[in-house]
Amino acid sequence: MRSIKKAGIVIKPHAPSVGAILQDVVNYFEERGIACVLEDVAARKLGLPEGPARADVPGAADLVVVLGGDGTLLSVAHCAAQAGVPVMGVNLGRLGFLTEIPVVEMLLTLDSFLDGNEDIISPRFLLESRTDGGTSYCLNDAVVTKGALARMIEYTICIDGVDVADLKADGLIVSTPTGSTAYSLSAGGPIIHPQTPAILITPICPHTLSFRPLIVSSTSTIGVKLLTGGEEVYLTLDGQRGGALVRNDVLEIRRAPKELQLVTSPRRNYFDLVKEKLSWAE
Amino acid sequence: MRSIKKAGIVIKPHAPSVGAILQDVVNYFEERGIACVLEDVAARKLGLPEGPARADVPGAADLVVVLGGDGTLLSVAHCAAQAGVPVMGVNLGRLGFLTEIPVVEMLLTLDSFLDGNEDIISPRFLLESRTDGGTSYCLNDAVVTKGALARMIEYTICIDGVDVADLKADGLIVSTPTGSTAYSLSAGGPIIHPQTPAILITPICPHTLSFRPLIVSSTSTIGVKLLTGGEEVYLTLDGQRGGALVRNDVLEIRRAPKELQLVTSPRRNYFDLVKEKLSWAE
Amino acid sequence: MRSIKKAGIVIKPHAPSVGAILQDVVNYFEERGIACVLEDVAARKLGLPEGPARADVPGAADLVVVLGGDGTLLSVAHCAAQAGVPVMGVNLGRLGFLTEIPVVEMLLTLDSFLDGNEDIISPRFLLESRTDGGTSYCLNDAVVTKGALARMIEYTICIDGVDVADLKADGLIVSTPTGSTAYSLSAGGPIIHPQTPAILITPICPHTLSFRPLIVSSTSTIGVKLLTGGEEVYLTLDGQRGGALVRNDVLEIRRAPKELQLVTSPRRNYFDLVKEKLSWAE
Amino acid sequence: MRSIKKAGIVIKPHAPSVGAILQDVVNYFEERGIACVLEDVAARKLGLPEGPARADVPGAADLVVVLGGDGTLLSVAHCAAQAGVPVMGVNLGRLGFLTEIPVVEMLLTLDSFLDGNEDIISPRFLLESRTDGGTSYCLNDAVVTKGALARMIEYTICIDGVDVADLKADGLIVSTPTGSTAYSLSAGGPIIHPQTPAILITPICPHTLSFRPLIVSSTSTIGVKLLTGGEEVYLTLDGQRGGALVRNDVLEIRRAPKELQLVTSPRRNYFDLVKEKLSWAE
Repeated sequence: MRSIKKAGIVIKPHAPSVGAILQDVVNYFEERGIACVLEDVAARKLGLPEGPARADVPGAADLVVVLGGDGTLLSVAHCAAQAGVPVMGVNLGRLGFLTEIPVVEMLLTLDSFLDGNEDIISPRFLLESRTDGGTSYCLNDAVVTKGALARMIEYTICIDGVDVADLKADGLIVSTPTGSTAYSLSAGGPIIHPQTPAILITPICPHTLSFRPLIVSSTSTIGVKLLTGGEEVYLTLDGQRGGALVRNDVLEIRRAPKELQLVTSPRRNYFDLVKEKLSWAE
Repeated sequence: MRSIKKAGIVIKPHAPSVGAILQDVVNYFEERGIACVLEDVAARKLGLPEGPARADVPGAADLVVVLGGDGTLLSVAHCAAQAGVPVMGVNLGRLGFLTEIPVVEMLLTLDSFLDGNEDIISPRFLLESRTDGGTSYCLNDAVVTKGALARMIEYTICIDGVDVADLKADGLIVSTPTGSTAYSLSAGGPIIHPQTPAILITPICPHTLSFRPLIVSSTSTIGVKLLTGGEEVYLTLDGQRGGALVRNDVLEIRRAPKELQLVTSPRRNYFDLVKEKLSWAE
Repeated sequence: MRSIKKAGIVIKPHAPSVGAILQDVVNYFEERGIACVLEDVAARKLGLPEGPARADVPGAADLVVVLGGDGTLLSVAHCAAQAGVPVMGVNLGRLGFLTEIPVVEMLLTLDSFLDGNEDIISPRFLLESRTDGGTSYCLNDAVVTKGALARMIEYTICIDGVDVADLKADGLIVSTPTGSTAYSLSAGGPIIHPQTPAILITPICPHTLSFRPLIVSSTSTIGVKLLTGGEEVYLTLDGQRGGALVRNDVLEIRRAPKELQLVTSPRRNYFDLVKEKLSWAE
Repeated sequence: MRSIKKAGIVIKPHAPSVGAILQDVVNYFEERGIACVLEDVAARKLGLPEGPARADVPGAADLVVVLGGDGTLLSVAHCAAQAGVPVMGVNLGRLGFLTEIPVVEMLLTLDSFLDGNEDIISPRFLLESRTDGGTSYCLNDAVVTKGALARMIEYTICIDGVDVADLKADGLIVSTPTGSTAYSLSAGGPIIHPQTPAILITPICPHTLSFRPLIVSSTSTIGVKLLTGGEEVYLTLDGQRGGALVRNDVLEIRRAPKELQLVTSPRRNYFDLVKEKLSWAE
């Protein structure tokens, strides 16, 4: 049995039926004497008084339920990891790699969680990305990309202080195993099981044809130094947050000290999910 | 014997030694009674009176010599094709796919050209790209790309009026055989011999993993309809010219009516060039 | 209106329901006064007197109907091309790239064919493969592969008499556009529309990482010279016919003089088929 | 300082200059009072009495020096790992991924080793492969492949007891990080730093286009069940040892209990080696 007092709820506000499903979750928790902490947009949806901003929900809760898609979950995952609060993702549309619980299994998964089922807790490490501008965290990936008008950027990849390669490419993805099925997959990267202690480095359209995705131990530090100047170049974390980079900017990426506890389905394992998402079983 | 009266010259102005090489070419032509038409920046380099803009050089000449890199040649190739004037590319730095003649072979290649050697003339077809904004031409490729902050764009590819696929991707490259060794190669495309009557369609980081580069006859028309809105999306021709696209914009790409006569090396065939550029012979 | 006198029928003898479907086709033709030429195994299935061998069916008919899968069609395609007789493939199991007509559309496609509908006739060129051992033809591909115990073979690829590359690899696929969706696709090759006048050269697991599938005009001749000795190496045509190769054997592959007239579905175009087979529309 | 009493020596007998280099190594050790244990073929080369078989050299020595190529080193690596004896590979031809020490650095690397330099010792885990026929070990990879005449094999991949996929393919490579730059790289796999605790699963020419190389933790067990029958199928370890497989055979692959201590160059790190081997720095 797991005893929780407060359940945070985060939603994708315009998803179809989100209001009714939100009400179901709230009812579920209230019947069990668990208080709900609704992010502001969710509180309004139910006609309740103002709630906290999304980023403040994990700090005020013992569990965060996300109703939406992978993007919604990614927007709160790094905060939940920092706060040490588990996150459960319910997809309101298509099956997600992170929001793998369908609406019809939502309540039974909550039952399983409250029963203390440890098998459904999947620990996922995050990456910490440091630039002169500060430190940020991501669950999937840190991505360096060029603007639409630039043809190519150039950067040095450095692993544990050793220069590995100077590459000309459209960009670079540094990804966790969790993020291996996100952007990196489209760029030609492999699939890494989330419990593998490894970091994935996938160049986007590299000019050097013999370059390949690289995988290093999750104890390694990856440095990226931008050699290109005068072009728009951006760093984006989890496809959502980020900022501009300029020539000679250095990015340092390593495993973050805190992990996310992701609540997964009691009915489906990691490879079931991959198989379904990628249509392996024709 | 080929008899020409005027030789146009186009240069990359900041390339090392460009002044001395330019003077050599001018001397070469003058000794043979052939007038030189120098683009303005080249004329100034030699202290001569003002010359025409680059785009006007082909129309005033019987041959265009490019001193620079592939980018320099691409900037004038579509004008030369329109004017029906052959182009010879001399690389001032690294060997190029288009500027394959090294400085040391420049004069002997000019000799070979003036001697009427037809084997060194490689006809290259261009693509014609039509949007509401007008019609443009490219020797390598027409590329649709997203801005750095967008995660993905979505478009429909249509071939000869038939919808082939709706794709989510970073972008799309529609390329001639000549352009198959340019951007498309970095995006995972095959190498197409320039005399193949085919058009290559290479998606950039497609979300659908079973999608592959497509090749169709050069008699086909490729339509691209942009489904994405609210993001920065650009069309770029030969990596140089282009403009913004918005949702529902339709691009029509087909083989252009006129070809470029590219002067290639008498000492090297197409696959020698590919082999050297891609380091196939370790 | 197309007037035919004799319809050849070739079957995959152990496919489910093949007997009943065969009877339907025979009835269809007999009602129209068209004689049926059943290959021996099909004749026996219906309790009829002995029929000709499969390879002799096209020469004795004005149309060949194949009931089976792509393998069945490939086994008779080169004979039908030689005889100049159209082939229609009905798949008894899963949709095939060549046997694209489902049983339920079989009779309406025959109606369409007899009505003289030219739109459903898709001309497909074949390859001619010459070795010292003789000349053979294939609709999909000529494949050079190593035995299971060899680690790698080495060969020279030569295009129109010019050496292109010495490669170490598991093998090599030389394919028509029709064959681009067969073995070559698994080996990383692109998809080529069947009406493209091009030949595709796809190495299997090449050691040189910067090597890529090559496409040349269908007017080219591809030479393959085997440099490896002392290992099992085989040439296979359409995955079915072939023989052993030894060191210094030379293979010459070019477009065959005769084309196959493939009867395709009036309800589906080429890209509809590709889209369905490759699950592009999730 | 590392004190060793006996140095084993293993050679590629027909490599150029192997005799002279062998004599240099023997002299080096004798000058330091270290006895040499030469495999039989090496002993004969120097006109010495009979030596042990190659597989028995590690058990009789405190260090094994390999003079040859990666194949030579692989032939003794699993025995050396079992015996707990370090191996140093000197390449007599081209730079190898395992035999990365050139002849000119051989003696200084031995100096460095005897001085007790720990930085040059790179621990490499091996895989243990179990079938009904017994248990074997490999440093690079366990590979399942089809014979030249079979078109495809079919197998189930299972990870920690969970079925992941049924695949039709030419074969399957299960590789250590060390083996990621061997066969797997040609089959499209990523590069994994040898200190990453991960196992790589790379299908060879998979029929399912959305399948990708998979990476799992080195604590996982990979099961492979062969579904195909009636064809030649082989299991090969490190490209050298193996045997036939038949339908329903099950292969279980996991990290082996003992590691190899590979002596690497004091002048070059792992990525320097990769960069040079793959020509990343044009």
